[in-house]
Amino acid sequence: MSAETIARTAREASNLLQTITSSQKSAVLKRIRQVLEERKDQIISANKQDMEAAQKDVDAGRLSSSLFKRLDIAGADGQKFATLLQGVDDVDKIADPIGQVTLARKLDDGLDLFRVVCPVGVCLVIFEARPEVVVNIACLAIKSGNAAILKGGKEAGRTNQVLADAIQHAIATAPMQGEGLTKFPERAVQVVATREEISSLLGMDRYVDLVIPRGSNSLVRHIQNNTRIPVLGHADGICSTYLDTTADAAKAVNVVVDAKTSYPAACNATETLLVHSSVAKSVFVDVAKALLQAGVRMHVDESAMAAITSADVDPGAVAKLVSKATDGDFGHEYTDLDIAVKVVGSIDEAIDHINAHGSKHTDAIITEDRKNAEWFMRRVDAAGVYWNASTRFADGFRYGFGTEIGVSTNKTHARGPAGLEGLTIYKYYLFGDGQASTDFGVGAGKRSFLHQDIPVDGSNGVRNKFVL
Amino acid sequence: MSAETIARTAREASNLLQTITSSQKSAVLKRIRQVLEERKDQIISANKQDMEAAQKDVDAGRLSSSLFKRLDIAGADGQKFATLLQGVDDVDKIADPIGQVTLARKLDDGLDLFRVVCPVGVCLVIFEARPEVVVNIACLAIKSGNAAILKGGKEAGRTNQVLADAIQHAIATAPMQGEGLTKFPERAVQVVATREEISSLLGMDRYVDLVIPRGSNSLVRHIQNNTRIPVLGHADGICSTYLDTTADAAKAVNVVVDAKTSYPAACNATETLLVHSSVAKSVFVDVAKALLQAGVRMHVDESAMAAITSADVDPGAVAKLVSKATDGDFGHEYTDLDIAVKVVGSIDEAIDHINAHGSKHTDAIITEDRKNAEWFMRRVDAAGVYWNASTRFADGFRYGFGTEIGVSTNKTHARGPAGLEGLTIYKYYLFGDGQASTDFGVGAGKRSFLHQDIPVDGSNGVRNKFVL
Repeated sequence: MSAETIARTAREASNLLQTITSSQKSAVLKRIRQVLEERKDQIISANKQDMEAAQKDVDAGRLSSSLFKRLDIAGADGQKFATLLQGVDDVDKIADPIGQVTLARKLDDGLDLFRVVCPVGVCLVIFEARPEVVVNIACLAIKSGNAAILKGGKEAGRTNQVLADAIQHAIATAPMQGEGLTKFPERAVQVVATREEISSLLGMDRYVDLVIPRGSNSLVRHIQNNTRIPVLGHADGICSTYLDTTADAAKAVNVVVDAKTSYPAACNATETLLVHSSVAKSVFVDVAKALLQAGVRMHVDESAMAAITSADVDPGAVAKLVSKATDGDFGHEYTDLDIAVKVVGSIDEAIDHINAHGSKHTDAIITEDRKNAEWFMRRVDAAGVYWNASTRFADGFRYGFGTEIGVSTNKTHARGPAGLEGLTIYKYYLFGDGQASTDFGVGAGKRSFLHQDIPVDGSNGVRNKFVL
Repeated sequence: MSAETIARTAREASNLLQTITSSQKSAVLKRIRQVLEERKDQIISANKQDMEAAQKDVDAGRLSSSLFKRLDIAGADGQKFATLLQGVDDVDKIADPIGQVTLARKLDDGLDLFRVVCPVGVCLVIFEARPEVVVNIACLAIKSGNAAILKGGKEAGRTNQVLADAIQHAIATAPMQGEGLTKFPERAVQVVATREEISSLLGMDRYVDLVIPRGSNSLVRHIQNNTRIPVLGHADGICSTYLDTTADAAKAVNVVVDAKTSYPAACNATETLLVHSSVAKSVFVDVAKALLQAGVRMHVDESAMAAITSADVDPGAVAKLVSKATDGDFGHEYTDLDIAVKVVGSIDEAIDHINAHGSKHTDAIITEDRKNAEWFMRRVDAAGVYWNASTRFADGFRYGFGTEIGVSTNKTHARGPAGLEGLTIYKYYLFGDGQASTDFGVGAGKRSFLHQDIPVDGSNGVRNKFVL
């Protein structure tokens, strides 16, 4: 099937999906969970083959260990697979956003405007390695009434294929009852395998509404540079944590160690630690000890180096793990057990550093001073601004979105971890009675607009949802 | 000043604007209105010079009459200038969206997530002819806390310059009292004059967050093809009106005549009339007579032609104004007194035609059947879907947005007429107490997420706005 046919049939499926009901979507999701559970052994066995092949690539230096880690769908104890199934349930349980009224306004008597949530349309999702993304995205797309075209990484090729087969089977065999669709459009979820297809699809802004790349920096940049379709995602995940003058040492240690070490390959791991000079020889020393104990390589500026060497830090660990930072260390995404450290003279210097070197992903302040915290949160230009919490919380599941389509560092449409809402937009419904625009204006016989907002909490008989 | 300096200083201004208060923004807007009023004569005189020069270009065939019509800032009776001033007041009066909480969720005890509205950042606005856009955009940018870089059309060069001078003067002399900014950043509103500057600015995705082109189809397409910065706007305005089986003749005439003739150069004018075959010889004939009387050239399919010629329509008008439609007439934006007409066999054929040939701007159905109306509104993929109302209502002022930054046919971020909200995005504030992500999970001693939504109506003491 040509890329053009894939895109066109996805668009046709998207048009049909406008009339699917919430209960029909729920039926499809339940069927997907069922088929995945039935085929668990087959899926894990395909994943093992992918893992074995990938291990050889890692050994040969052709694949990074961080990509390898993301490939595993089962986890040591099968817990990751259970989480995957739980994710399907979670999406099923989230309230259906489609049809929700987000603004209602009486333009005039008998002329009512409603802003109604609807699906974006056709989403092209490109991802590397992590095969559970196939399931996440398919479920989010179905729940939000979008058609999705998926392209996974070749390292997870076998896993992706069995997952896609399971989803296709579930779609084709899900019961469709009640009003709405009589048959779920099978082209609503499609999988493509080659780079050539992606290259063609990126040119099809006529059919594709949104591209969601999830993967390496270079993959995302390549896509951003090669399409005029809106792109939701992030190329860099350069997160910072700032230790303010009143930082609590225990909180600082707990947060920074987690932010750096709990999953260094993740985009929400902290890459830069900023330290107010007043706590360089106190709180920072505690944090440095904990980081060194966790085996973190610290790339530090002169002031931080002085603070470490003048304190009772194990000289062996310092010799092994602490080095002088270069300019390149700030604004660098290590995706490994490395952290850059800079001492600053003020909270504003920390904020300016983050706004200049960060990637607008997630940044945290550790302080006991609420005013400083809110100043930081207001002025730092990032999708997530945290007070006394690890940057690792930047995640759709942790935010309670069920699962996520990705984390966006865009400053339009969806920002931060994006779940169902990131796949929706709205349209304006205008209910009239034959009005012409020229009925309104200044002069004899002309009407004026009322522009009277109507509460949409359902309390007043005004519809707050447009559903079949 | 180089384009890079313009962009960088706009970004710096944007960073400073994060701490401006609502009352400070109001003071700047009031000062702008005051200076514009003081300089009214100077502005109208500059506009007259632009109009005279443009008239020569129209006479010589170098400028379209539709562009010329948009150049006039005063109107025959000065009404347009009064509307311009009113627009400043209107923006001042709209509630300030910045700092508003749109989601609050308890992730755990002592771990609270808030989604808070914030400015997009730096917006580059490129427009042709209509000089009042300088004022509209400057006001919307200030109210929403964004920095704006503006480039107007050369035909309105003199008008744009005096308007920009007035705004700059107002910004520099506006009183800044209370907490927040001590001085309004002068680089928050900048005007550039050359295409070369635009070309450079389109490459500066590091500093510029959003591009808003307002102008011809070719201008917008050029910009869409030459930047990776998100673009808000529309290239085409191909709106359709569909006469359903139960269409009321009087409503149909009132709506369609307005939709086609009240301002044919506007993007929200109807370009295509779709007619259910059951009303081709009744309601449609009334509409056709009214359109012909208004001097509209009708490009009709065979069935529509048959309906017109078999009815008592003035043969002189038919001979002069009615011609056979070609495929190119459907999906064509005339921006003039022309309309394409097609007879369809069903509402679904009308919907499919619109989804295939429209530009996702605004489409209307004329019917007395609510079920058909809602079916049309749900299935037509457009920013505006109207029942018994003219497509010409698609406008930020008419929607009660004060004024608009543009009409978006995007299906991400802002859709349809975009006002203040189109210039905002959000960030997530997370308030913790030293939590690590690994404190949560499955197993002994691990915590589970609560994911408890908190109402943000202000009723429960939970903050629903983060302001200085």
